Amino acid sequence: MIVTPIGFVRATRQTPEDDNWGGTESAIALADELPEDALVGLDAFSHAEILFAFHQVDPAKIVTGARYPRNNPDWPKVGIFAQRGKNRPNGLGLTTVRILGVAGRVLRVAELDAIDGTPVLDIKPVMDEFLPRGPIAQPDWSHALMRDYWRQTDDNPSGRSEA
Amino acid sequence: MIVTPIGFVRATRQTPEDDNWGGTESAIALADELPEDALVGLDAFSHAEILFAFHQVDPAKIVTGARYPRNNPDWPKVGIFAQRGKNRPNGLGLTTVRILGVAGRVLRVAELDAIDGTPVLDIKPVMDEFLPRGPIAQPDWSHALMRDYWRQTDDNPSGRSEA
Repeated sequence: MIVTPIGFVRATRQTPEDDNWGGTESAIALADELPEDALVGLDAFSHAEILFAFHQVDPAKIVTGARYPRNNPDWPKVGIFAQRGKNRPNGLGLTTVRILGVAGRVLRVAELDAIDGTPVLDIKPVMDEFLPRGPIAQPDWSHALMRDYWRQTDDNPSGRSEA
Repeated sequence: MIVTPIGFVRATRQTPEDDNWGGTESAIALADELPEDALVGLDAFSHAEILFAFHQVDPAKIVTGARYPRNNPDWPKVGIFAQRGKNRPNGLGLTTVRILGVAGRVLRVAELDAIDGTPVLDIKPVMDEFLPRGPIAQPDWSHALMRDYWRQTDDNPSGRSEA
């Protein structure tokens, strides 16, 4: 199957990092092929799901079986589909962001954990009805892994996008 | 960009329908190319995000601009990225499901709104830290559209999968 970017991320952060995405503001600019009205009405929603490609991952590093999350042997070795790391089959990333606004062909968002130039494959509005139905359970290691993910640092260069 | 199915849906429902997905149980069987341990540890999570392809959509019907959701003129005409309908660029679907269990190469799930044979492109565990941060807001039309989406009917043929 062939997929085509529907837009590209404009962000301050130029290289992938594991943590400290809190406070990040960035933008998604529609690809030239798409009309401006593809984004009409999106700002009536508070949040959107952004589906993007981990475009800088070396194909040789893709894991298809099990591994330690972040290669940390303190955590259990689990299958690639039991973790959200970037070295995964198809290299697809998915993050729920806060919508800051729509201006013409540009969607401004908060807390998108994607670097500058990332190809975006889809944007979907978050509807309460599509959130998890029933209580959430997850293993302790995943809480430990996420501890600093959304941490906001004063000197975080991605804290404000220039986009 | 080329993406390859990592698995396929086994479900009772054979044709797309808008509503009444409540109670659906189905399964995702890993593609032959992937090792069984790709799913190890996934059953420690209560929920997963399933990324799949709307593989039966006619490319001629894909909307790139704005349209009435479900072609219903009672609702506002909004951009394709302000709705979750299947006739969208790249034809990618995304649903949060409840995990029922993992057995070898098969993941059993509840409330996956995908028909039998659907190609699956990724499976990601739901972590509380990746859910929307801050309160959710969405327009009234989206609540109206979703009213019967998860309705469970006694005679719903997809209520139990044979997978």
